[in-house]
Amino acid sequence: MIQSLKKIFQLALLLIFSTPLLAQDFYSTQKREQWLKIAEENQPKLIETIKHPVSLTNIIADPIAFQGYKANPNGKPEVLYTASLKKQSGTVLDFGEHLTGYFTFSLQTLKSTADAPVRLKFTFGEVPSEVAVPFDPYNGGLSRAWLQDEIVTVTEFPATITIPRRLAFRYVKVEVLGSSPYFDFALTDCFVKATTSVSTTPSPLASTTSELIAKVDKIGLNTLKECMQTVYEDGPKRDRRLWIGDLFLESQANIYSFKQHSLTKRCLYLLAGLAQEDGFLYCNVFETPKPHAQVGSPFLFDYSLLYNVALKDYLVATNDKQTANDLWPVAKRQMDNISKYLDVNGVFNAAQAAKDGWWLFVDWNEKLDRQAALQGIMIYSMKETLSLAKLLGKEKEVNQLPGLISKMSSGAKSQLFDKKLGLFTSGASRQVSYASQSWLILAGVVKDKEAQKVMKALQQYKDAVKPGAPYMYHFYVQALIDCGLTQDAKSIVENYWGGMVKKGADTFWEVYDPTNEQLSPYGFYPMNSYCHAWSCTSVYFIRKYPNIFQKE
Amino acid sequence: MIQSLKKIFQLALLLIFSTPLLAQDFYSTQKREQWLKIAEENQPKLIETIKHPVSLTNIIADPIAFQGYKANPNGKPEVLYTASLKKQSGTVLDFGEHLTGYFTFSLQTLKSTADAPVRLKFTFGEVPSEVAVPFDPYNGGLSRAWLQDEIVTVTEFPATITIPRRLAFRYVKVEVLGSSPYFDFALTDCFVKATTSVSTTPSPLASTTSELIAKVDKIGLNTLKECMQTVYEDGPKRDRRLWIGDLFLESQANIYSFKQHSLTKRCLYLLAGLAQEDGFLYCNVFETPKPHAQVGSPFLFDYSLLYNVALKDYLVATNDKQTANDLWPVAKRQMDNISKYLDVNGVFNAAQAAKDGWWLFVDWNEKLDRQAALQGIMIYSMKETLSLAKLLGKEKEVNQLPGLISKMSSGAKSQLFDKKLGLFTSGASRQVSYASQSWLILAGVVKDKEAQKVMKALQQYKDAVKPGAPYMYHFYVQALIDCGLTQDAKSIVENYWGGMVKKGADTFWEVYDPTNEQLSPYGFYPMNSYCHAWSCTSVYFIRKYPNIFQKE
Repeated sequence: MIQSLKKIFQLALLLIFSTPLLAQDFYSTQKREQWLKIAEENQPKLIETIKHPVSLTNIIADPIAFQGYKANPNGKPEVLYTASLKKQSGTVLDFGEHLTGYFTFSLQTLKSTADAPVRLKFTFGEVPSEVAVPFDPYNGGLSRAWLQDEIVTVTEFPATITIPRRLAFRYVKVEVLGSSPYFDFALTDCFVKATTSVSTTPSPLASTTSELIAKVDKIGLNTLKECMQTVYEDGPKRDRRLWIGDLFLESQANIYSFKQHSLTKRCLYLLAGLAQEDGFLYCNVFETPKPHAQVGSPFLFDYSLLYNVALKDYLVATNDKQTANDLWPVAKRQMDNISKYLDVNGVFNAAQAAKDGWWLFVDWNEKLDRQAALQGIMIYSMKETLSLAKLLGKEKEVNQLPGLISKMSSGAKSQLFDKKLGLFTSGASRQVSYASQSWLILAGVVKDKEAQKVMKALQQYKDAVKPGAPYMYHFYVQALIDCGLTQDAKSIVENYWGGMVKKGADTFWEVYDPTNEQLSPYGFYPMNSYCHAWSCTSVYFIRKYPNIFQKE
Repeated sequence: MIQSLKKIFQLALLLIFSTPLLAQDFYSTQKREQWLKIAEENQPKLIETIKHPVSLTNIIADPIAFQGYKANPNGKPEVLYTASLKKQSGTVLDFGEHLTGYFTFSLQTLKSTADAPVRLKFTFGEVPSEVAVPFDPYNGGLSRAWLQDEIVTVTEFPATITIPRRLAFRYVKVEVLGSSPYFDFALTDCFVKATTSVSTTPSPLASTTSELIAKVDKIGLNTLKECMQTVYEDGPKRDRRLWIGDLFLESQANIYSFKQHSLTKRCLYLLAGLAQEDGFLYCNVFETPKPHAQVGSPFLFDYSLLYNVALKDYLVATNDKQTANDLWPVAKRQMDNISKYLDVNGVFNAAQAAKDGWWLFVDWNEKLDRQAALQGIMIYSMKETLSLAKLLGKEKEVNQLPGLISKMSSGAKSQLFDKKLGLFTSGASRQVSYASQSWLILAGVVKDKEAQKVMKALQQYKDAVKPGAPYMYHFYVQALIDCGLTQDAKSIVENYWGGMVKKGADTFWEVYDPTNEQLSPYGFYPMNSYCHAWSCTSVYFIRKYPNIFQKE
């Protein structure tokens, strides 16, 4: 008896001391270190290419041009290089394509001797408006420092100077803010050491592909290439880091284009190694000065769920079971959130989750009610996670999923589907949105003809909340394809992504509302990223579903 | 006969082909290279010292403070270092003394994770007004880039960044121009790697020296120390290069203080090696990227004449005959300009020389007529050159000088001296100025009691054009001493240099008019150099004439 008491006491002690340790880190330090080491081993070598500007250009206010500004070619760069920069202050150089890298310029005296420093301003733009619209006074929501204008003091001639920060741009405006009246000088050269980790060339499209689709594909590839650096960045201008949502779409596009799967592997390991102590994932991580997560950022529920889908897709594409098995505990852990905010009907209580600090993203769209979309994402992720488990022979470890999938699907159908409208609604306001319908179709809550009916009703529903950005358009197109509305899918790719092409895009934009070109989630449209990972997925559609995108 | 003709022909050919060569370079390329090599061999090693700010300070508008701004200490730098920089944007750090060197700062996150770059502005000031007065819109005459404000984008945390340009300042204002709302950060450290080539300590002043004179001496020493880098710079903020006029005064001050004569040697050789092709001197030269003159700048006549005086002073101070002999051809050559613009009376035709492009500097004072002052400088320089020739046993090479000295002295007396006024006048307007009287006294055109009378008449003459800057004040004080008005000399040092001390100078200013603190030759007073070589000569007077500067 005393022996038993002693044992119980020992056990209690063990629990007391081991529980905080378990609570401190869901994965072991050793495991994390090993994951980060694998991430490091898979860091790609950047391919560096020297690129020179191809022309000078005039940025002209033009009400029918994208955002009201047009770039009109205006001679060769040599015109700038050989004459006084003082007299050409404000000149814009055009590199002819979107580039990401390090900008170097050279100055030489033209007349007399340099007797004073020179103050120059370089403004870099992905799109023409960025080198035309004044940045100050700045009232946007994100750091003013994202905007790519750099002021440089040159103290010695001749000079060759590299701006320290990495830049992403096609256009650069050069302004002289200060110079001596006693000498003259020229900007004699400039170039970019452009970087990407893409080293492969995707297979050519079928010759029957329309010109527009070929362009949409090419610009999607450029977008992806620019975002593929030492991680899948969201945008090389802004935020320049690895977000799960972008990783998910980039890795899908990569599977059907560059096939550089080791970058996906690196990113999956990086996110795992830097997960929260409770095992749930941070929505984004940084690489430098050493890999670290955005500690302090809110938990982004939908992104954590999409990690599992990216891991499953990676396994299917590569058959790399070692990685999938190694990271399985991370995927499994993400499922532990599913039932936290379900009501008796298996419907997600989004309002409460948001109130408790969860970030429900879904789309850049302030008006969007997220409940129904999250319901769909949860079911979709559970199904994909179950597939992953099956591929690894680990179904038993997630044996709660089939029941949850069933309950949540029924709940969605019974609680969120408005039979009269033939549409899913979301939240207390019973909002109808593209996001809700798309995600619940992707989740398979409705299928085939039933799903088609939903989509057709949606297109007729005047007040439906539309997608706010290419990220949500992706899932809408996927849902259209999944339910067989392939012509509608094609039409969206041609009109939405094709719309950007027609408006002069070199890479696809983070935010694009055809009816409001100055829309910005950040209060200032030059802050938007105009080369954004999540917008590259035209590549994925065109290459995964070639039959849909052939000429009729 | 044929033989003779052949010889004549050969001689003619030789002349034809050698004359252009001689005309191309008064000194041989070989000689110049040798001179530049000696200059390089005498380049001092810079002494580097790490200096931290001593306090935070409030810059307060105060009508009785110098230029209307006062620096009020406001706590320890640690107050800044340990709390949000965002909330302390605009803070001014005080390094407690004037420093020249490279500024480094460190940033660390305080809260959450850095998720965006930060845009900072650092404004460096030698005097409080420079960190208080807006620089833009800028309408000054010199390059805006001299003004010491630098905008830096910080892309990674923690960060330690050194601003590339060398700076000269006591105060630095730190402003946050852009930052993310999602994290906070602190400026956790900053320092200057201060440089000077001064490695010696001058002898202490006599204990009978007044407190004010001791301060004037100390600040003069600081000024000289800050300007003594790898050449005698005119000002470490602006223009940061070797001008003959500044070299002349700095080397005089150095002879009586730091005694680092090899720097003088270096500078004399540098100017010689970089002289114009016709053998006359450029008024200023630069060291980087390789030594070069300000080609294209006008010929500054008075400075070229003072080179000879600096060489003679150097010889007297060091007895380095090798250098003096080596550079004698340069000194001798400068004398060839003396007679170019003399009228029949031996009076300098300043108007014609200026019309032909010569720069007659004398002083920063637009109103000043330069004729009489130049007349004095020419005679003074000839006399000093003659002394130099005698020390080297080379009088015969400049046997034109005694006659010219005599003729020009008589000419000055007969043509420029107004017997009624008892003053020298200058130019067609018969202008009376401190510059004219001072230089003609320094030239010995009038001496002793006669000179004293001139000076006394000058002081009574209401409309006399006063010195515009310390450079001219120096020659005024020297003239007062030369003619025995030592109390007047002492009074100027106490009131003019002492006036800067009382107004808070850490180093002496390029321009100082007690009646107009915002006077600037450049149209914007923050452009003035507030640590300027030619203002350091209080050191020279106090140490060369200790008896004058003792307490009474």
